[in-house]
Amino acid sequence: MRRLIELALDEDLGRGDVTTAVTVGKRDTHATAIMNTRAHISLAGIDVAAAVFTMVDPRIVVDRHAHDGDVLEPGAKILVTRGPAAEILMAERTALNFVQRLSGVATLARRYTDAVVGTACKIVDTRKTTPGFRVLEKAAVLAGGCGNHRFDLGSGVLIKDNHIVACGGVEAAVSRARREAPHPLRVECEVTNLAELDAALAAGADVVLLDNMTPDEVRAAAARAHARNVLVEVSGGITLTTVRAYAEAGADLISVGALTHSAPAVDIGLDFA
Amino acid sequence: MRRLIELALDEDLGRGDVTTAVTVGKRDTHATAIMNTRAHISLAGIDVAAAVFTMVDPRIVVDRHAHDGDVLEPGAKILVTRGPAAEILMAERTALNFVQRLSGVATLARRYTDAVVGTACKIVDTRKTTPGFRVLEKAAVLAGGCGNHRFDLGSGVLIKDNHIVACGGVEAAVSRARREAPHPLRVECEVTNLAELDAALAAGADVVLLDNMTPDEVRAAAARAHARNVLVEVSGGITLTTVRAYAEAGADLISVGALTHSAPAVDIGLDFA
Amino acid sequence: MRRLIELALDEDLGRGDVTTAVTVGKRDTHATAIMNTRAHISLAGIDVAAAVFTMVDPRIVVDRHAHDGDVLEPGAKILVTRGPAAEILMAERTALNFVQRLSGVATLARRYTDAVVGTACKIVDTRKTTPGFRVLEKAAVLAGGCGNHRFDLGSGVLIKDNHIVACGGVEAAVSRARREAPHPLRVECEVTNLAELDAALAAGADVVLLDNMTPDEVRAAAARAHARNVLVEVSGGITLTTVRAYAEAGADLISVGALTHSAPAVDIGLDFA
Amino acid sequence: MRRLIELALDEDLGRGDVTTAVTVGKRDTHATAIMNTRAHISLAGIDVAAAVFTMVDPRIVVDRHAHDGDVLEPGAKILVTRGPAAEILMAERTALNFVQRLSGVATLARRYTDAVVGTACKIVDTRKTTPGFRVLEKAAVLAGGCGNHRFDLGSGVLIKDNHIVACGGVEAAVSRARREAPHPLRVECEVTNLAELDAALAAGADVVLLDNMTPDEVRAAAARAHARNVLVEVSGGITLTTVRAYAEAGADLISVGALTHSAPAVDIGLDFA
Amino acid sequence: MRRLIELALDEDLGRGDVTTAVTVGKRDTHATAIMNTRAHISLAGIDVAAAVFTMVDPRIVVDRHAHDGDVLEPGAKILVTRGPAAEILMAERTALNFVQRLSGVATLARRYTDAVVGTACKIVDTRKTTPGFRVLEKAAVLAGGCGNHRFDLGSGVLIKDNHIVACGGVEAAVSRARREAPHPLRVECEVTNLAELDAALAAGADVVLLDNMTPDEVRAAAARAHARNVLVEVSGGITLTTVRAYAEAGADLISVGALTHSAPAVDIGLDFA
Amino acid sequence: MRRLIELALDEDLGRGDVTTAVTVGKRDTHATAIMNTRAHISLAGIDVAAAVFTMVDPRIVVDRHAHDGDVLEPGAKILVTRGPAAEILMAERTALNFVQRLSGVATLARRYTDAVVGTACKIVDTRKTTPGFRVLEKAAVLAGGCGNHRFDLGSGVLIKDNHIVACGGVEAAVSRARREAPHPLRVECEVTNLAELDAALAAGADVVLLDNMTPDEVRAAAARAHARNVLVEVSGGITLTTVRAYAEAGADLISVGALTHSAPAVDIGLDFA
Repeated sequence: MRRLIELALDEDLGRGDVTTAVTVGKRDTHATAIMNTRAHISLAGIDVAAAVFTMVDPRIVVDRHAHDGDVLEPGAKILVTRGPAAEILMAERTALNFVQRLSGVATLARRYTDAVVGTACKIVDTRKTTPGFRVLEKAAVLAGGCGNHRFDLGSGVLIKDNHIVACGGVEAAVSRARREAPHPLRVECEVTNLAELDAALAAGADVVLLDNMTPDEVRAAAARAHARNVLVEVSGGITLTTVRAYAEAGADLISVGALTHSAPAVDIGLDFA
Repeated sequence: MRRLIELALDEDLGRGDVTTAVTVGKRDTHATAIMNTRAHISLAGIDVAAAVFTMVDPRIVVDRHAHDGDVLEPGAKILVTRGPAAEILMAERTALNFVQRLSGVATLARRYTDAVVGTACKIVDTRKTTPGFRVLEKAAVLAGGCGNHRFDLGSGVLIKDNHIVACGGVEAAVSRARREAPHPLRVECEVTNLAELDAALAAGADVVLLDNMTPDEVRAAAARAHARNVLVEVSGGITLTTVRAYAEAGADLISVGALTHSAPAVDIGLDFA
Repeated sequence: MRRLIELALDEDLGRGDVTTAVTVGKRDTHATAIMNTRAHISLAGIDVAAAVFTMVDPRIVVDRHAHDGDVLEPGAKILVTRGPAAEILMAERTALNFVQRLSGVATLARRYTDAVVGTACKIVDTRKTTPGFRVLEKAAVLAGGCGNHRFDLGSGVLIKDNHIVACGGVEAAVSRARREAPHPLRVECEVTNLAELDAALAAGADVVLLDNMTPDEVRAAAARAHARNVLVEVSGGITLTTVRAYAEAGADLISVGALTHSAPAVDIGLDFA
Repeated sequence: MRRLIELALDEDLGRGDVTTAVTVGKRDTHATAIMNTRAHISLAGIDVAAAVFTMVDPRIVVDRHAHDGDVLEPGAKILVTRGPAAEILMAERTALNFVQRLSGVATLARRYTDAVVGTACKIVDTRKTTPGFRVLEKAAVLAGGCGNHRFDLGSGVLIKDNHIVACGGVEAAVSRARREAPHPLRVECEVTNLAELDAALAAGADVVLLDNMTPDEVRAAAARAHARNVLVEVSGGITLTTVRAYAEAGADLISVGALTHSAPAVDIGLDFA
Repeated sequence: MRRLIELALDEDLGRGDVTTAVTVGKRDTHATAIMNTRAHISLAGIDVAAAVFTMVDPRIVVDRHAHDGDVLEPGAKILVTRGPAAEILMAERTALNFVQRLSGVATLARRYTDAVVGTACKIVDTRKTTPGFRVLEKAAVLAGGCGNHRFDLGSGVLIKDNHIVACGGVEAAVSRARREAPHPLRVECEVTNLAELDAALAAGADVVLLDNMTPDEVRAAAARAHARNVLVEVSGGITLTTVRAYAEAGADLISVGALTHSAPAVDIGLDFA
Repeated sequence: MRRLIELALDEDLGRGDVTTAVTVGKRDTHATAIMNTRAHISLAGIDVAAAVFTMVDPRIVVDRHAHDGDVLEPGAKILVTRGPAAEILMAERTALNFVQRLSGVATLARRYTDAVVGTACKIVDTRKTTPGFRVLEKAAVLAGGCGNHRFDLGSGVLIKDNHIVACGGVEAAVSRARREAPHPLRVECEVTNLAELDAALAAGADVVLLDNMTPDEVRAAAARAHARNVLVEVSGGITLTTVRAYAEAGADLISVGALTHSAPAVDIGLDFA
């Protein structure tokens, strides 16, 4: 997080703030500024926003009025900063750029969470995150009530088509992974039809990923998998409109790339008091 | 760019690719994979995508079949990679994460460009970029036919409300900036009504930024500014629906934060040949 | 790996090589140097060693005569470098420091692997690695025929005493983890007696870690766990002398910190031809 | 030191601590934990261990109960940390990994120091350090009562066989070094027989390094060197068993690579109070 | 700034301070040291100097007795440091290296400022700065009463001979830049004779740079440019002796590379009280 | 060196080259540019200059026509670059900034070297280097025929007034250092009068540093020191005018801070062919 904030501040402030220098100058005015939301949001990224201010100037004091995960109405206070006016101005844009995007992710995640409420299904993210933001966006997904899939290529075994081809089939791939994978990791295998599903189950997969199936296909597959005590994940272009049908068809998990790759920023502002 | 790619690769590959290790293993299979678009897009980020592959493994050869700025139909080839299959697999997600997002920005920018075609108005971006991605997103905006506003706080004088308050008024702020700003920079001042506009013009502003005005208000203000040979920028919640009205009202520039903060990713894939 | 090599080279060469400068000077002598082992070893780290040479000077060409995992007798060639003599000299110590240590780890791992040969038990490493060397040391452990435990705190759920206390008991901790952990991760719980074991099994642990038990205690515990299809890991001061008894008592996995925290370096040298 | 700790923490905590997250969660429990030794050790690395805790969370307070160089009995307190329980848990392994290794070096160094007690000989380290750890390990060597040889290739002139070959003989190499080396550095030359020794002395070496000689050979060589007021260093596979004989034969310095390349970690633990 | 200080401290202190270690040792003596100037100077760099001390040891307290831009007589106090003597000693050289150089720049800048006093001309710097020091040296130039030219290649359009050749003439180059440059930037064009000047003015240049002209030539060119409301910059080997003649000839700006590339360091010392 | 070049390029090119973008654009023109000196210089920094070009674009080919240490007349070719015109333009300023400064150091060093020609005295540098440039400036000093003093605080023992005070006198300080310093380092002590000189000699100093003495005082002191086979260094405001008198008075070494802190840049240019 620190490295990313440094990158962002360097990017915006690396050559100084010429406007403030030639207008405000060195007057050491003290100011209070309030960050509040202008939309209905689920909050995420308050820690990053706060860190931006204190990294620009350790004299800036930040009081939090909300927590990641809070659902906020337009006008709700997020945080209040107090300190030298020029430095608050210099930090403003970078702090907002973080919190607007991360709350955008949380807000979209919350809509998915709400869409499957009452089912046993959990919505999870993917590795389709903004490069450099994975830790932050995965936390924003949690703030929106969804769950996390594997963090990176090292923290989960997920066998896909290319791995299957390289091993000569689902059964060979799953068996080999069961034997060689570090024991703290489950073995998950993507399958595209019932024959592959059966092969994966026979070879001892812990989780199956059903890609691009209809809800009815999912229902049939889930029945077989659950009979073997195997978890069922579903993925492939699932939207807010279709997600509930999949949840009701028996998916334990539904992964949605849009949570992190296409969430629009939400409107959050900073106003001087 | 290099630092951001390193951050992204470290994030995804820092602990290795356990699935490939336990299924494909060390077989040194050679493969060819084609990146093509699955949607109608304006391309941006091909250089970053190519760099991801060669940074993962310098043996991967990348041939480009398109250039940033190209408008591509679904199915069009973007690039072809040839090299060790395992390493291509390891680079795939990170390369796609970059090019999907940046092409998302270019594609949205292209829609704005098209919306004002035939007018003298240029659509420009803002500093509401993804932290760490400013250079890349600003290039994507150009690839979509729009223009760039100032790069950072050091490469443009843009006097806003808080600077005006600190100086005691528009006229004082603009005059001081004219006197003290580095001469390669124009002095731009945000104004919210005609009185402020007149003060800015009197004090010698080179550019005025009209914030949150209606097209009719813009028309009146632009007439006055243009009489003084002063450029007119307009901003404030302008959408694809409203942008043309502002362009026709005489705006020289319209800045749109959504270009970079809310462009959805576009669908681009990588398939093994 | 690159960052660590840079750190190491900077540490040794950051102020130049004064001896070479004041004796050899700038004569551009070409040399061939052979790296070979002087002891019976399992090799690990050949890639790092090779990278050190080419990072000091890209003109140095490295030919490999062995692979990680090879068991080598004294005198066996590991690699041959050809290039400017002064730069080979400057890289020598750093390259050796890496390969001697990593082969030390692989050599010790091989002894553990041999000690349990013929049983179903796998020896695995721990997080007790040299700070900064985790990727390299975990690869060296694999080169010695052992397996890897979780890579870091993010790639495995391992509930220990303090987590249990914080949750108010084994059952609560395991249940909560089952519910909240990312689905690609198994849930492992440390237990110190049969009551805790039963609680962990009842709550659905996927793996149990038996800490500081005797082989007989392990035998009893393993029987119960295996009846529930649960994996059994054993740890706690297990040595080359005692490891086989634990393997035969039914441990599926035995974790040994000494693999990485106390492996002595092996003797490998570089000689000019 | 900071960079290495960052590397280590990133390696272990970069993806978060999933176990603590899914069991302890965000409860802000305060805890006290005591780090004490479980073996007879010479302490080194207390500053690094303390820094690890405060870098994980500045709210963690560390009280030291010992100093580097202290000889501690099993059970002795090293330091006490107070602060948020989750963060202490997250820092624990990394802090221990540092202090166990560095105290391992100090403890082995202390054994060598004790082995030559009463002689005029000083045991010194070499450049065979763990890559990235040179500053820390050289400090640990001092904590064990031994001395440091040159820090790096820039802080000492040590002419070895390859330099001699390149210059065309011992005398030419030493003479050239005397003339060209920065004056704050002594000129040391490795010799393997009496003829080379005489050449080095004639050319004005300040120190001679006797490599792989027997104690009797050392005795003869030292007599000649001391007659010229020249220091005598001895190296080459010297162990705890043989070191005293070399010290008594007149070596001023004995360099021992094992101090840093093969010291086993010592047992140090952290217990919650 | 932080990165540069770290580089500097690493360079000087990376291997420790062996002299202090072997003489002062670990005695925790407290000391007070006063930094004062031994020459007539314009001060710059006090913030960097202060930061060096606190980065070496946060326990060192620094009280400032002057500000950047102050003109100080020999003997004047700059700052006072209080804290552990050894650490103050370790920071001394690096702190002085910064403040002596930056005050050297400010002192030379002040002489140029004084040389044109009473004219409307402003002396500005160039991009001929010490690599890595641009932010600091540009601030030192301001401290000496001069102004800043563009910060980098991204914060100003300055068309030079090679750009003109590539575009096929002054007029084409300036026209294209007017059309394509980000609107916050003025367009400046270097011209070497009146024909080029007229072309630049016709094409709408905002600023012209007269290179290597005599004061009389400048006078003629300035008259034409000012008639078009265009700013006039002059450059090319202008010295303290010749600068006033150019200022009086009508230059609005005179750029002087020597301000940053050839300012001698000034004499500033640190004395223990 | 790499890190400093990256810092410098980032500083100048981090936001791109807007002028080249809006005039030259993407035309892939190939160009040849010649770097030659416009003054009488001693060359230093050719490797850095060459590296700047290839770091900006690996397609730029650099041919060297001179070597560090060469004395060049105005008009002499230093190097020739061939490659894409835009990228050569972008690298130009940074490459020149390095080579102009470093050759400035070498040129001044050469003047000092010439001033003491025929004496046994060597002129050496100090730690008063530009922060971040120590390796480069020390090499430039060698290129100018002078020698290097210690590289940093870790590669030489130089006891100064504050160390003496802390130890309670010259004799105590030198004795302690003799006993505790790493054996590859000589012990040097600063003395300000004959009483201190005698104390230093008695305690076994290897080198004495005579600070701020007249040539006659140096003569007397040198006689005493040389009788003990001890080297004599002289320092303190010595200039090109006074340096020969000190050399003839018996100084073995004269250290001159101005070599690195006040050498003016020399005039070197880059012209397109």
